Order: sequence, then structure tokens, then C-alpha cells
Amino acid sequence: MALDDVRLGRIKPAPENFLSDEDIQSVKEGRRDFLRKAFVAAGAAVAAPAVANAQSAGDPAILELPPWSKMLGKPVAANPYGMPSMYEKNLVRRESPGLTRVSGSSVAFTPLQGLFGIITPSGLHFERHHQGWVDVDPNKHRLMINGLVKTNAVFTMDDIMRLPSVSRIHFIECGANTGMEWGNVAVPTVQYSHGMLSCSEFTGVPLKAILDMCGADYKKGRFILAEGADGSSMTRTIPMEMVESGEVLVAYGMNGEMLRPENGYPLRLVVPGVQGVSWVKWLRRIEVGDKPWATKDEAVHYIDLMPDGLHRQYSSIQECKSVITTPSGGQLLLDKGFYNVSGLAWSGRGKITRVDVSTDGGVNWRTARLETPVLSKALTRFNIDWVWDGKPAILQSRAVDETGYVQPSYGQLRAVRGTKSIYHNNAIQSWKVVESGEVSNVQVL
Amino acid sequence: MALDDVRLGRIKPAPENFLSDEDIQSVKEGRRDFLRKAFVAAGAAVAAPAVANAQSAGDPAILELPPWSKMLGKPVAANPYGMPSMYEKNLVRRESPGLTRVSGSSVAFTPLQGLFGIITPSGLHFERHHQGWVDVDPNKHRLMINGLVKTNAVFTMDDIMRLPSVSRIHFIECGANTGMEWGNVAVPTVQYSHGMLSCSEFTGVPLKAILDMCGADYKKGRFILAEGADGSSMTRTIPMEMVESGEVLVAYGMNGEMLRPENGYPLRLVVPGVQGVSWVKWLRRIEVGDKPWATKDEAVHYIDLMPDGLHRQYSSIQECKSVITTPSGGQLLLDKGFYNVSGLAWSGRGKITRVDVSTDGGVNWRTARLETPVLSKALTRFNIDWVWDGKPAILQSRAVDETGYVQPSYGQLRAVRGTKSIYHNNAIQSWKVVESGEVSNVQVL
Repeated sequence: MALDDVRLGRIKPAPENFLSDEDIQSVKEGRRDFLRKAFVAAGAAVAAPAVANAQSAGDPAILELPPWSKMLGKPVAANPYGMPSMYEKNLVRRESPGLTRVSGSSVAFTPLQGLFGIITPSGLHFERHHQGWVDVDPNKHRLMINGLVKTNAVFTMDDIMRLPSVSRIHFIECGANTGMEWGNVAVPTVQYSHGMLSCSEFTGVPLKAILDMCGADYKKGRFILAEGADGSSMTRTIPMEMVESGEVLVAYGMNGEMLRPENGYPLRLVVPGVQGVSWVKWLRRIEVGDKPWATKDEAVHYIDLMPDGLHRQYSSIQECKSVITTPSGGQLLLDKGFYNVSGLAWSGRGKITRVDVSTDGGVNWRTARLETPVLSKALTRFNIDWVWDGKPAILQSRAVDETGYVQPSYGQLRAVRGTKSIYHNNAIQSWKVVESGEVSNVQVL
Repeated sequence: MALDDVRLGRIKPAPENFLSDEDIQSVKEGRRDFLRKAFVAAGAAVAAPAVANAQSAGDPAILELPPWSKMLGKPVAANPYGMPSMYEKNLVRRESPGLTRVSGSSVAFTPLQGLFGIITPSGLHFERHHQGWVDVDPNKHRLMINGLVKTNAVFTMDDIMRLPSVSRIHFIECGANTGMEWGNVAVPTVQYSHGMLSCSEFTGVPLKAILDMCGADYKKGRFILAEGADGSSMTRTIPMEMVESGEVLVAYGMNGEMLRPENGYPLRLVVPGVQGVSWVKWLRRIEVGDKPWATKDEAVHYIDLMPDGLHRQYSSIQECKSVITTPSGGQLLLDKGFYNVSGLAWSGRGKITRVDVSTDGGVNWRTARLETPVLSKALTRFNIDWVWDGKPAILQSRAVDETGYVQPSYGQLRAVRGTKSIYHNNAIQSWKVVESGEVSNVQVL
């Protein structure tokens, strides 16, 4: 495309991106005034790329040299551990107030609407705790192995970190992600609808190697119990075949550094493809056993009430799912024209093979570009071009994984699962765009 | 291996890992006292995994429930933007004092000795500035395209962020990384010897797409000039064929979020495989031209003085290189036994195909395991087992890339390049282990 042919549309981000406080205030006070101002600004900016430099000289931003081009900046290691720009201070994880009785057992959602690629910055990794988070002293932390093993054992962090390690990029999604939508509660932004989702490079020791050292009885011991050291003593059963695959890790590293306290420092279980609750944080004990334990968090919580009145238990694999992160709920398209539609796809059963995108509520679909690397049980970033004609539109994405599984519509999901669930919603997400450019969350069956 | 067969060695990390202030003080005051204490502690800990739980009950850490297992922890979003554990506060980037006249034009090194996998946490990305770092207002920032193009243009950040984007994982290495070693200055730790090296997932627009929009003259315009908006007005020539390959990005995203101010927020050039100085930060202008510009930072700096007295210029590709990050200089092996030897390999010309490791100074070599994904022009993590017999050892790694290039020894490198260089040292790194377990930096020809 040549510059003259391109009419760049622009997005007013949901109020978490680099907007001035004034901008955000305008949005809060009512969109109209803000919209007028924004259109003026957008008009000026759209003109810029399409004109020769004679005209763009009228752009005040390039008429004079900004202060940062005329000064000695800050020294290196001014922040020995660096932080984002001051203009990004609104892009943070956020709690949905009132979701639980105390914030220690609540959720802080990842701001997917402002993120790129597949790696989630560790500072923005979603949080879900059962009794708050703790900063465990690694010198005092221990991992105990017991049950159907020849030798019970207790490992220090030093012991664990000296063992052969592997590093792998995987997504982690809470089983309750997109849970509000079962009740047709259209939460306003993708942060709240899909933000219990992150993807990191994890480093640790395959649990299989540790169980081998202890002489685990793999014939009788077909399950393990993982237990955390926080106040909730989170306990989860995991089938031994997952451990035997070599994929389950006793991890201490996340995105290159030690785990963050909120994510289980100094040790958590990594169970690729499985819902987050099984990735037990502050991991202190692994027991090998011959049957599932049916603990509180697998008998009462994280289960699905089916239409026949029975509960589905141990349904831990996160099925194939995707979501468009931009444009998404709460954002505002400020003009007709070209947009880069971008989103995330993932499957607990392997690699993503295709993502299709519709802008007309599922009538027509086009196949999006997948960014590489496409990894098993990791987020996959997709992008596709879209020229908005200014008319109402409904944006959807539909992912397919390497098993051939196709992400279902709400109609398809409900036909099987009913409407009483809280967990394991992987239906196609719809974002409605109206003439004013407002983007909102709608449910399309 | 069974637990009884494993005698886990342990490493006293260089004083940047989770050591108490007391530990670090001990190291500073002289190792002897510290060593005694450490051996006692290590002895107790080594015993633990090898005994049944009857004995490990003697471990005070598991005799009583720690406080964090009995309390309600902190709420979610206590840190809306999270930070590392308080026990990791010594793992930071560090300046080498006195390296330059002012810290605004200095280097802060990445603590490779404490990192895992291939992704560098953005807070620990190395820094190298020429006139300090600045936090540029994205609403006022502009990118201008001029020179041999049909239409000069000025882009706002909004314009850039609406264009089709790609996300890719690449390493960035300063051309001066490991530069002190040319003068046989054995800097003490891998942080200072190799820490001008990071690897991130970058998101942005291929520069080719932007030049296409402006109608660049690819026949005459065989070079581009990239210019930064900081006080140093950093300018670098880049061959157009690199742009035409589609690999050069105008990037705004790093590890999922906007670039950090120290790394060029809101816009930097990404030039995969090329030395860091060409990845112009705070990018404000791209000019298309018909010959190299020979700017200060390519005519006077970032050049190599060869044995024949001539300078090598525009030698921008970072050749195949590797380094063992643990065990590494400044660390201390506290016991004989099993160690996981881990390190990083990379090549500016493509993928790493093999890394060999020697523990006897290059006489014998074994091939290490490469962690996946192995990506082009990205860091590759390697791991290999080693049982230390308590005798002196010299640890080395030697990488091979997909072009067949083999990382040279110091002898091989100097035979071609002489000894007068500052930049582009990719020789094999040697870490010497002595009987006491001390690890130090030595040069092996």
C-alpha cells in the first residue's frame, strides 16, 4: 500500500494505555466533549502521514526540539531494577471489587488490552490467591516427597536448583477465566473478561526426575497430590501420566528470574495445559498415591454443574480458546479506516493451527496471521488487517488446535454444558462496534 | 539416578542471589570464616534428601509450621505492578564504576549469573546510553521518514501502532560486550564480562512496510540512517538489504508491554543479529540514502583496529558466541558432586545448532542439551550435567551456528584480529575452578 491510499484509523484505548489524566477524566465525565476533542486531534494526526513535510511542519511536536533532545538524561542503573515509563502507569493489573469477601482470596486481572506478543510481563501476571500471597524465605522453604516412594525426602531450594533444569514457555489460565459470562454478565473490558491468563517462560526441574530419585512406584502410584505452603494449604490431585510425560515442572524461574512472590516464590508446580489452580504455588509437598484425593478445591470448587444435575470433576484441561484483545471492550474507534486486529489463542492440548476472524458476527471468516514461535500449550499471537467502514460490526475470533478441536460458539458450548457453570468457558468472544466507534462486550449464540 | 546415588553439590552464588546481608558481608570480609559456616549449613542440607523422613525431622525448617502457612497473606493487586521477592533484592543490574566519565554515558550490566531460560526480565535489561536516558512523552513523539522516498512523512505513535505488527524474540548485544577481555582484564563475574546482553520478545512494524508506504527508492536507496531523539542524537547507517529482509522493526513493545524508557520508549529500531548501538533508541527519524553516512558512532567508535593498522568499519553482525553462566566467576562450589552447568549461546547469523562444553580447558568436549525453542538471532539456553571431583577444572562452552561457524578460542580470534580491539569479542570464555571451589575468570588461548 502507498501512503496516499492508507487512511489510518485510530483507537481510543480503554483507559489503561498512555492517556493523560485529562483524557481519562474526559472519558469518565462523559464521552461527548472528549470525542470532539479527540476527533480534532485525530484529524490532525491522520493528516500528517499523508502530507509532504511542508505541511507536517505545522505539527507543533516537530516545530521545536523537545527538552529530552537537549539534555543529559538520567544515569545508568538509576533504577537498578527498572520500571515502565511514567506514561504507562495506568496499565496495571486490577481487582474486580466485590468478587470475593476479602481481597486476599480475590483476583487481579492482566490488562490484555494493552499487551503485545505472547510473553506476559511478570509485573502484570494475573493473581488468584486463596488466602493472600506471601513472600516465603527461600532459605527456610522445603519440598517434601512422600507416599508411594521408596525413599521419603526433603529438598532445600539449593538441592532443587542444582538438578538438571529445563525452560519452557507455557500459558497459565485460571479455570474461572471468562466465568462471569456464563451468567451473561458482559464485563466491560478484555482485562476482566479474559485477564486471568498469562504466558511466561518457566524454568525448573521435571517432577519426574525428582520422583525417580525417590523411587516412586509408578505402577500403583497413578496420582500425585501437590500441596502449597500458604495459609490455604491448597491441595490438588494430578494424574501421574502428566508427570510421566515430563511436562510437569517443579519451577523456580519465570521469565528469566526467580518466580514473583504472588506467583509462588520460590517454588511452584507448572502443569502445562491445565487450569491455574493445579499449578500449586509455594509448593511444599508432593505425595504419590493410588487414587484422587477429592480435596475441597477439587470436590467443591473448580467443578462444572452439568445440565443433568451431575458435577463434572477433574476437568482440568483448558480447551482451545481465543480472544481479540484490540479492538476490545471499552476502547473507542475514533475514525473509519485501517486497523490491525490483534489477539491471543491457546489450547491446553497442544499447538494452535489456525485462527479465523469475523467482523460480521460470524457470517464471514478470514484466516489471521499467526506470529512465531507457535508453541505447544503457550499463547499464540494473531494479527489481521481490517478496514472499518464506519458501520456496526461484530468482531470474533475462532481458534483451532492441532487435535482438530474448534473453539465453540456460546450456542454450541451451552448445548453440551448448560448454563450453570462457573468454570471452563472457552466460547467465542464477541465485541460489538457501533457507529460512534464504541466497542462493547456482547454475547452471540 | 536414585536418591542414594546422588551427591548434590551446591553453589555459593556470586553475591547477587538470595543471600542474606550477613552472608554477603562474610564474603566481603574474607571467605574463610564464611566457608566454615557454609560447609556446616551445606552438610546439613546435603544430608536431608538422602535420608528418610525420620532423620529429616531434625531439620528445623520443617519441625514447625512457618508463619506464612498460618496467616492471611497480602491482597491481590497489593502491587498493581509487581516486583521481585525481597529476597532477590541483590539481583540487579550494576554499573562498572569509572568505565566512562559520567554515568549517563555508561553501562549497567545484566546479572546473567542469576537468570534462567532465554527471556531477560525487562527490569534487568542491560543499559548503554550515550547521553543518559529519557522518558519521552509518547503523545509528543514523532517518527519522520525522509531522503530517497516519494513522500516524506511524519508518524505519530498512534499511526505506528495501527499498522500491521509482528512479534519476535531476539537477542541484543552491545558491540563492546566482553570488551575488557581484549586487554586481558579478567573482570570478576559474568555480569561484567558478558552482561551487555539481553533477549526479549519485540513487537512492532517492519520498517519495510513503512518505507513502502512512503515510496522508498530501493534501487538508489541502499542504506538507511536511523536517528534517536535523546541528547546524543545517535545516528547509525544500516544496509537496506537488512530492511528488505523484513527483519528490521520499528518496535514499541518489549516482553509484552511498551518498551522501558531506558530501552527507547516509546520507539526503537530492532536490527536482529546486529550490535546494540544500531538498535537506535527513542527513534525519531529514518532517512533513505545512497551511501553510508560515516557518522561519529560508526567512523570513530564501534570500529576494530586490525593488526595491519587499518580500521574495520560497519562490522555490525554479532558473531556466534556462548558463555557458561553457572558456575561462573565469583561463585563458589561448596562441595564435590553433581552440578547443572548452564549457559547461553547466540549468533547474529541465525540459529544455534550445537554447544559443546569442556571441563578440562578444551581437551575433551561433550555436547550440551539445547532448550527449546531454538530461534534465529535469539539467545539459546544450554544445560549439561557435571560431577565435580573436587580437583581443579576449567569450564568452557563453544557454540556452532547454522552457517557452520564455530566460536573461536582467544588464540584463533587474536591470530586474525590482533589485540588492539575494543569491540566484537566472541571468543570462548573460560572459568577456572580451584580445589577450594572458587570460580574465577581466566583467559585460555
